[in-house]
Amino acid sequence: MSGDGGTPGNSAYGRKSFKRSRSHFADRITADGRDGWPVEAGRYRLVVSRACPWASRALVSRRLLGLEDALSLAVADPVQDDRSWRFTLDPGGRDPVLGIRYLSEAYDRRETGYPGGVSVPAVVDVPSGRLVTNDFQQITLDLATEWSALHRPGAPDLYPSRRREEIDEVMAGVYQDVNNGVYRAGFATGQEEYEAACTDVFRRLELLVPRLERQRYLVGDTITEADIRLFTTLVRFDAVYHGHFKCNRWKLAENPVLWAYVRDLFQTPGFGDTVDFDHIKRHYYQVHTGINPSGIVPLGPDLGGWLTPHHREELGGRPFGDGTPPGPVPAGEEVPAAGRP
Amino acid sequence: MSGDGGTPGNSAYGRKSFKRSRSHFADRITADGRDGWPVEAGRYRLVVSRACPWASRALVSRRLLGLEDALSLAVADPVQDDRSWRFTLDPGGRDPVLGIRYLSEAYDRRETGYPGGVSVPAVVDVPSGRLVTNDFQQITLDLATEWSALHRPGAPDLYPSRRREEIDEVMAGVYQDVNNGVYRAGFATGQEEYEAACTDVFRRLELLVPRLERQRYLVGDTITEADIRLFTTLVRFDAVYHGHFKCNRWKLAENPVLWAYVRDLFQTPGFGDTVDFDHIKRHYYQVHTGINPSGIVPLGPDLGGWLTPHHREELGGRPFGDGTPPGPVPAGEEVPAAGRP
Repeated sequence: MSGDGGTPGNSAYGRKSFKRSRSHFADRITADGRDGWPVEAGRYRLVVSRACPWASRALVSRRLLGLEDALSLAVADPVQDDRSWRFTLDPGGRDPVLGIRYLSEAYDRRETGYPGGVSVPAVVDVPSGRLVTNDFQQITLDLATEWSALHRPGAPDLYPSRRREEIDEVMAGVYQDVNNGVYRAGFATGQEEYEAACTDVFRRLELLVPRLERQRYLVGDTITEADIRLFTTLVRFDAVYHGHFKCNRWKLAENPVLWAYVRDLFQTPGFGDTVDFDHIKRHYYQVHTGINPSGIVPLGPDLGGWLTPHHREELGGRPFGDGTPPGPVPAGEEVPAAGRP
Repeated sequence: MSGDGGTPGNSAYGRKSFKRSRSHFADRITADGRDGWPVEAGRYRLVVSRACPWASRALVSRRLLGLEDALSLAVADPVQDDRSWRFTLDPGGRDPVLGIRYLSEAYDRRETGYPGGVSVPAVVDVPSGRLVTNDFQQITLDLATEWSALHRPGAPDLYPSRRREEIDEVMAGVYQDVNNGVYRAGFATGQEEYEAACTDVFRRLELLVPRLERQRYLVGDTITEADIRLFTTLVRFDAVYHGHFKCNRWKLAENPVLWAYVRDLFQTPGFGDTVDFDHIKRHYYQVHTGINPSGIVPLGPDLGGWLTPHHREELGGRPFGDGTPPGPVPAGEEVPAAGRP
């Protein structure tokens, strides 16, 4: 749910303690359409920023599940202006499907004069141009379970019924301490608040190490939603959280277990092919002028290491369970060379 | 010469490009006293901040040469206020020997109304309370060569005549690209200026790697002034330059050769025992509010690695030449536990 910690007009600075807003639009797109939004191929548009870890969860799920044809994709400029996320990467500065310049226009069509923040991921109903949901915690769960009629053949089960309790438990700790912990550290306005958050980040990461030392994935022997959610934070760790958010006890590249784990996922089709390090770095360093007044984007870190062997296959595991890896990235959705290792 | 890049009242920000001021007071303390300042035991006081890489050169030289009894030491608070370096670490907030609260008082006694910056290292004439020199490039060379009558028995030759050409050449490149390069990167106000400086830093460091891969020290087979000058930048690299100054292509801890080289020096008496990581981190992160508006000091990096084996003895070399290592740190000059690995 980027928007919350970044947009100049909707900033976290000046608050005593960083609190992530709850998603305001929590309608669900379901197989039975009980909220008025039935799953339907071609009807909805997923709006993301490739900079945003919350939106990137949906980017990975959509790829792993093969939903690219059923759910189209709009990629916002990584640098918001004072009207928030915008489609300045598209010809004429408009999303070619929705015809809008700012994501806020879809919010306005849903609720006139909505005073809250504009965040990604957002799912927009194409015929009406109205926002359906910006519920970053629910969107991927629904892609995994409600959209199954549209999954590709061989799509993995990312939220298997018999593992949900363990997945939910792991995700809750990771959310609190890591996914959101890095933001609490980075947006802290006082030393004590920062230290508590930074300590949480590394304590939780260290707790995960023994688990990931003996098994390839977080829960069970296949990739699940829990891995997706940890991945989108870890892939940003050395690039932005380490320096910009001061989560600097160590770099991920200095932790053999976590560094191998995240490289393994990065090299798995559907993960690394969604990641744009250029968008990530420019977003954090240029938007958060309260933390980085110069807006200068660092040259580092070197990205070469992302493609080195990880040897995690030796732990066993079946990445896609009884399924298969996704095919290549659809034409037009490739990450530009500037954003790749 | 800290003061230049840090003091709020004397800031580098807002200038188009970071330029280090030349030292204004360049009198030399010599064996023959030709500038009116003869070498004399007990007459002068060395004023430093343990945060400052330029002042720390003199801290290391003084230890290696055994000048602690001949040249007394004043350590300023790592965090300047709007009147610059101050003696708030001392009882009553006054240097017990000079009786002053601010280093600027010694500058004022030397030149009334001096409009320039107040910097460390500074050498003050105790009887008159007047600043003698703040010439950070010359002070250590004079300690090594002009103060030899007061050196301890077994003191090394840090600036050997037959090696001076090579030492000067190595130091010139290291100064331009590394010692000062990190500041040009950190205080850059534009992307292009930053990128040029950061590129210089890493290009020069990479140039040093083959040399330090085959020999234990930079020039010849003993510790020289060149090692001291590289050390005081490298010891700060991961703690402040990597994140705060955005010199983040890699951490020193990720470069096996340089990381072993700097640990070797750190573990050599006279180097690591002068280093206060607490002073270093608090100075950079709290003083440069133009770069770090929150003033929050990061918890990292983990310092445990500094004391791990480096195996550089295997390269041969004679750290102190025909001399011996210095004795223990004098009572009262020990770095507090908070600043040590």
